[in-house]
Amino acid sequence: MARRNQHSREELQGLAIQAVRELVVEKGLEKLSVRKVADRIGYTAGMLYHVFANLDDLILHANAATLDQLLGDMDSAADSSPARALHQMASAYLALAREQTALWQMVFMHRMQNAAPVPDWYQQKTAALFDRVERQMAGLATDHDPAQIHLAARTLWSGVHGIAVLAAQDKLVVAGDVDEQAMLESLLEHYLNSWAGE
Amino acid sequence: MARRNQHSREELQGLAIQAVRELVVEKGLEKLSVRKVADRIGYTAGMLYHVFANLDDLILHANAATLDQLLGDMDSAADSSPARALHQMASAYLALAREQTALWQMVFMHRMQNAAPVPDWYQQKTAALFDRVERQMAGLATDHDPAQIHLAARTLWSGVHGIAVLAAQDKLVVAGDVDEQAMLESLLEHYLNSWAGE
Repeated sequence: MARRNQHSREELQGLAIQAVRELVVEKGLEKLSVRKVADRIGYTAGMLYHVFANLDDLILHANAATLDQLLGDMDSAADSSPARALHQMASAYLALAREQTALWQMVFMHRMQNAAPVPDWYQQKTAALFDRVERQMAGLATDHDPAQIHLAARTLWSGVHGIAVLAAQDKLVVAGDVDEQAMLESLLEHYLNSWAGE
Repeated sequence: MARRNQHSREELQGLAIQAVRELVVEKGLEKLSVRKVADRIGYTAGMLYHVFANLDDLILHANAATLDQLLGDMDSAADSSPARALHQMASAYLALAREQTALWQMVFMHRMQNAAPVPDWYQQKTAALFDRVERQMAGLATDHDPAQIHLAARTLWSGVHGIAVLAAQDKLVVAGDVDEQAMLESLLEHYLNSWAGE
């Protein structure tokens, strides 16, 4: 049943990442194991351990694929004016949360086993996302210093994340009839408006 | 073992709500059952069903206690200027998320069984919270219409919720060194600054 010679190392890696993403959408992160991923692609768990260090490593690679997708969506917004680009980036984030909720949640639900540190290569992925936001914010407020831009980029992300969390969990109903896209526009318009002029 | 005559209906209700809150902090919402709540306070599950319709009803009452606590914290901020009151309300929300994470999460994690509607009495609790925010926002921008205030109150709450979610899950580390209180101040200052002048 193991078809160890049918795929290159890179192909096996890709297959396993795809299997993680499918299994999380179907059954949730709690039920995921290296064995189930191996079963799904017709390999033994032992073979997968030649390619991934452990379950954490597998999950981080699957999350990296989600972040790469988001980065691609954000980069396709980068040609507009800074304010428009930031609105489009925020919309891309909200769309990811709405349309691929399980994969987006996995990025935030996953915790390293035994409190192991998040590896550098993964931290560079998240840093790349913030870098895109910061570049647009620097374009919007050319005399702001790096510390101001650092704080504002993370504040804006947290705000957009809050809208995305509540929208994805259908918890906005409790707040009365309110449209998440209208909230997103309002948040960015007013926050950036005052921040750029500070 | 059941001591059914030792407590009034109101006392039993209070004991059960307290037991729900303790059990959720200790073991999480997933493990909660009417039987475990009954065991904790030395009653039979059957006796609890005389006071609460079902597990949903019990959880909603426990969540209502959390919302009452938040409402109390928010009301003690209501005498300041509108902008200061809103900052203090937001800080109260963040403090709840930080210091009583399990109870605060239960408000958002709980879903009604069989998609039953959330009862009116509970919706009035959440409405009372928004009412406090809206009153301060109306004081800040006296010529804004109710639709503007409605949207802005929910946008601001979503933003604060996002900071609280990321802080409570210790996910702000991934974003680089950033202080949640500084983000909260930045969010409210800039959002309200532009919104009030619109």
